[in-house]
Amino acid sequence: MDFARTTLRWNGWGWNDAPDTLGEKADAVWMWMGRTLGVDPLPHTPAKPLPEIALPPIRLSAEQLGALAQRSAPDRVKTDDYERAFHARGRSYHDLLHLRAGVVDTAPDAVVYPESAEETLALVQYAAAHRIAVVPFGGGSSVVGGVTARAGAGHLGVITLDMTHMNQVLSIDEVSMTARIQAGIYGPALEEALQARGYTLGHYPQSFEFSTLGGWIAPRGAGQQSNKYGKAERWLVSATLATPQGLWITEGFPGSAAGPQLRDLVAGSEGLLGVITEAVVKIHRAPEAKDYRGYIFMDFGAGIEAARAMMQNGVPTAMIRLSDPDETFFYHALHTGGEADPSLRFCLMLVGLEGGADDVAAARVRSMEICEKHGGMHMGESLGDAWYKGRFSTPYLRDPMLDRGLGVDTLETATAWSNLLPLHEAVTAAVREAMAANAAAPGAKGIVMSHVSHSYRDGASLYFTFAFPRALGRDIEQWLAIKRAASETILAHGGTISHHHGVGEDHLPWIAREKGPVGIGLLRAAKEQLDPEGILNPGKLLA
Amino acid sequence: MDFARTTLRWNGWGWNDAPDTLGEKADAVWMWMGRTLGVDPLPHTPAKPLPEIALPPIRLSAEQLGALAQRSAPDRVKTDDYERAFHARGRSYHDLLHLRAGVVDTAPDAVVYPESAEETLALVQYAAAHRIAVVPFGGGSSVVGGVTARAGAGHLGVITLDMTHMNQVLSIDEVSMTARIQAGIYGPALEEALQARGYTLGHYPQSFEFSTLGGWIAPRGAGQQSNKYGKAERWLVSATLATPQGLWITEGFPGSAAGPQLRDLVAGSEGLLGVITEAVVKIHRAPEAKDYRGYIFMDFGAGIEAARAMMQNGVPTAMIRLSDPDETFFYHALHTGGEADPSLRFCLMLVGLEGGADDVAAARVRSMEICEKHGGMHMGESLGDAWYKGRFSTPYLRDPMLDRGLGVDTLETATAWSNLLPLHEAVTAAVREAMAANAAAPGAKGIVMSHVSHSYRDGASLYFTFAFPRALGRDIEQWLAIKRAASETILAHGGTISHHHGVGEDHLPWIAREKGPVGIGLLRAAKEQLDPEGILNPGKLLA
Repeated sequence: MDFARTTLRWNGWGWNDAPDTLGEKADAVWMWMGRTLGVDPLPHTPAKPLPEIALPPIRLSAEQLGALAQRSAPDRVKTDDYERAFHARGRSYHDLLHLRAGVVDTAPDAVVYPESAEETLALVQYAAAHRIAVVPFGGGSSVVGGVTARAGAGHLGVITLDMTHMNQVLSIDEVSMTARIQAGIYGPALEEALQARGYTLGHYPQSFEFSTLGGWIAPRGAGQQSNKYGKAERWLVSATLATPQGLWITEGFPGSAAGPQLRDLVAGSEGLLGVITEAVVKIHRAPEAKDYRGYIFMDFGAGIEAARAMMQNGVPTAMIRLSDPDETFFYHALHTGGEADPSLRFCLMLVGLEGGADDVAAARVRSMEICEKHGGMHMGESLGDAWYKGRFSTPYLRDPMLDRGLGVDTLETATAWSNLLPLHEAVTAAVREAMAANAAAPGAKGIVMSHVSHSYRDGASLYFTFAFPRALGRDIEQWLAIKRAASETILAHGGTISHHHGVGEDHLPWIAREKGPVGIGLLRAAKEQLDPEGILNPGKLLA
Repeated sequence: MDFARTTLRWNGWGWNDAPDTLGEKADAVWMWMGRTLGVDPLPHTPAKPLPEIALPPIRLSAEQLGALAQRSAPDRVKTDDYERAFHARGRSYHDLLHLRAGVVDTAPDAVVYPESAEETLALVQYAAAHRIAVVPFGGGSSVVGGVTARAGAGHLGVITLDMTHMNQVLSIDEVSMTARIQAGIYGPALEEALQARGYTLGHYPQSFEFSTLGGWIAPRGAGQQSNKYGKAERWLVSATLATPQGLWITEGFPGSAAGPQLRDLVAGSEGLLGVITEAVVKIHRAPEAKDYRGYIFMDFGAGIEAARAMMQNGVPTAMIRLSDPDETFFYHALHTGGEADPSLRFCLMLVGLEGGADDVAAARVRSMEICEKHGGMHMGESLGDAWYKGRFSTPYLRDPMLDRGLGVDTLETATAWSNLLPLHEAVTAAVREAMAANAAAPGAKGIVMSHVSHSYRDGASLYFTFAFPRALGRDIEQWLAIKRAASETILAHGGTISHHHGVGEDHLPWIAREKGPVGIGLLRAAKEQLDPEGILNPGKLLA
């Protein structure tokens, strides 16, 4: 299954004809949001339609386009405006500000859809020989500028390899519980094929509907249930990549001491070391039971202690999602169309359990005991079920917010348990201050909220969402200022610049500091070794 | 705590004055072993004493030795014969054949004991600037030639950095359950310091008594209870290394998407990328309960299925050790001084559980159910307790075997569950045939046995032991032939060349094939970047 690109928004989230996610609550929500953010009424700021936008000229010659077609097929080399615009950028807030304003200042000269590892390799090697940049593209859902169609210095142009024709589950090893899967498969097709055989990968990021296996591996992505199923680097057994030096098939052992496992470099390589064509991944039996329920904590720190106790006592959770008071209030208000009391300061924790019925029952008892011991009030399954039903819906809110002069972005980090609360406080304060300092107008108010989203024995991640009235006309500068403040604060307070979104273009200014001079030198050496012409995804991760 | 080198055998295992591990059963065991291996009586083949051995001349000048002393301290630069011989090689069978024969053809020109990361860095950078090779050395227990004191082409000499003065637990983060520990600490001192605070790392390799934290990380080692505590790469949070390019402090986040995590290159780097000076590691609460018990399976395949079921159903074992019929018989005979019936073909599985008392009780019920379902007969705790008491004793058997004209070595691999039995059969047959083809004399018999030693959801490791009468005078060639046969078979049948011993010098001929041309190019590029003079541990891993 691949999605015809014209059925999807080229400058937003999801299907072109997707219904309004807010339904009949829409008017009430917008009124409340306008009041909350200090903009009443909300302005009308529609995106520029594609026919009104001039795309940059195509730099590749007919001969070069012919060479690409020879290595794939004529009908799989696309140069029309919709394909070029669709693949111009990912779907970050930063990307959307450009696309919606009609600033398609960079776009692939051609989009090629390879159908095998051999074709992918031939395309990569042709591009390397002719100094044409190559951007690997799955669902294109990057929120950090991971797939911007950019040529590097000295490159003649840029092609995007859209991998979504490579979308088959090739084989399942039911004894070893692994599956060999092509990298361009979308989430729903992957799970459909596995679940038809009784298995699951269990990787459900918020972008699940419109993201691919390769797109999960390349930036070290995480699904919402990563406590059980693991981030990409944990479920990745081996990967095959097309590199300028040839096909790279990594090790694929359950454990090995034969030197560093280079597979570990693939997760996080963001297309800079090669184009992932297929992967072997660990699978699980499709869960017999799921149990998602809510707990209310009067204090964020108490909720964190409960999450930590579950992780460090080995309670097998699939998900622990602990919202801070601001986020708890926001979602409550959102669901009620503004009917929420902001003076109530409490934290909602959702605990998700998946697996065999007996295991889930046992984990329910243990997690409930721990939550209650830490002051959590059990709220039953309704809050959990509601979250589960809407777990992919939040991204759909962004386009209508952008249509109304509002901005919204997310960022995430991770740190040790002992540093989680200080980091949360510092980043919250930094984002709040930066939104105030860069307010669109007097009276405009920004809000910032967050939740603990993925937990480990030694620490956890924090996921921040911030929304604010856009400073129309200078909204990129406004976003950059907020992003900079948040990122500087994360680094200064011992967090990683990203827990699962990746680096892309947006986090580039901070990666060298996070890795240190020796580390960044190592990464650059790996890049130079596999891709001396620097054609693979220029401008991301290492610049 | 560090061990004065003169209290330890320079050419064997453990303390100089260690008592005979066989005790009063010794005579019976040797008679049985001679009969079993077809050598009766066993010959007397003692090791050559150090005073009779000529060491290679020291190549470093007084000025160079003075420069080393300036960067450490005069009394921490050693050039006496015992220090040089002790650090000449690790403790592989291959190493011992050299050392016992008095062939100390390569030895460090000096042994330096740094006491800080800064000293280590100064020594490494001095060595790099003066083209002197550097061998990092912890306990020196490598069984794959990982610490042979070898200079590379163009090097003026070789120094060994003995890290055992850097042996402190620096801090414990009780909230995040991590500890910052210097790399040269021996196993017993590390566990003593952690357990005094109620914690454990839980890393107990067979070499535990005489190996160090850095020595566990560098080759991606595994403790016997790795099912629970993980191999080194799983418990490693971050590492600090002294490299020719400066101090390298890796990332240390519980999870991150900020590019590939370069920490993952440290585990398995075998000293080639830098000298590990300290590490942050994940710790656990010291287990409240331990439960080790035996099960008998009439069939190796049935035992494997039981192990797989425990792993894939999430039963939290600390250890599953499943011996094949040959190993089960051998250890039975060893413990009874030969009173065992070789016609009984069954397999002993030891299941070890560690943790909170309730968790262990629950895991006991589940593991027992699974074992019995697969035909395992529960044998109670006595076999488990006996194994636990003697879990570090096997290495002590090798020296007395070598004293009696016998050879013994181990090798290990890992593969997917679906490939475990075929790999087991192929390697067993290859080692058996190679021992026969390279027999010391007509009538000499080799034996090979193995066990599943570390398990994962997707596969497991196999640990082989083989013993045979040495072809005296050509015993290195004999060993090489057996090793070559086993290694070729492992690669041809989808196993890794090592699961936890590492590559060192012994597995060098196979690493490039295992990594593939693109992978090995990447590793070489990383090496070239950090150590362009190739001074760090020459001749290991990448040659």
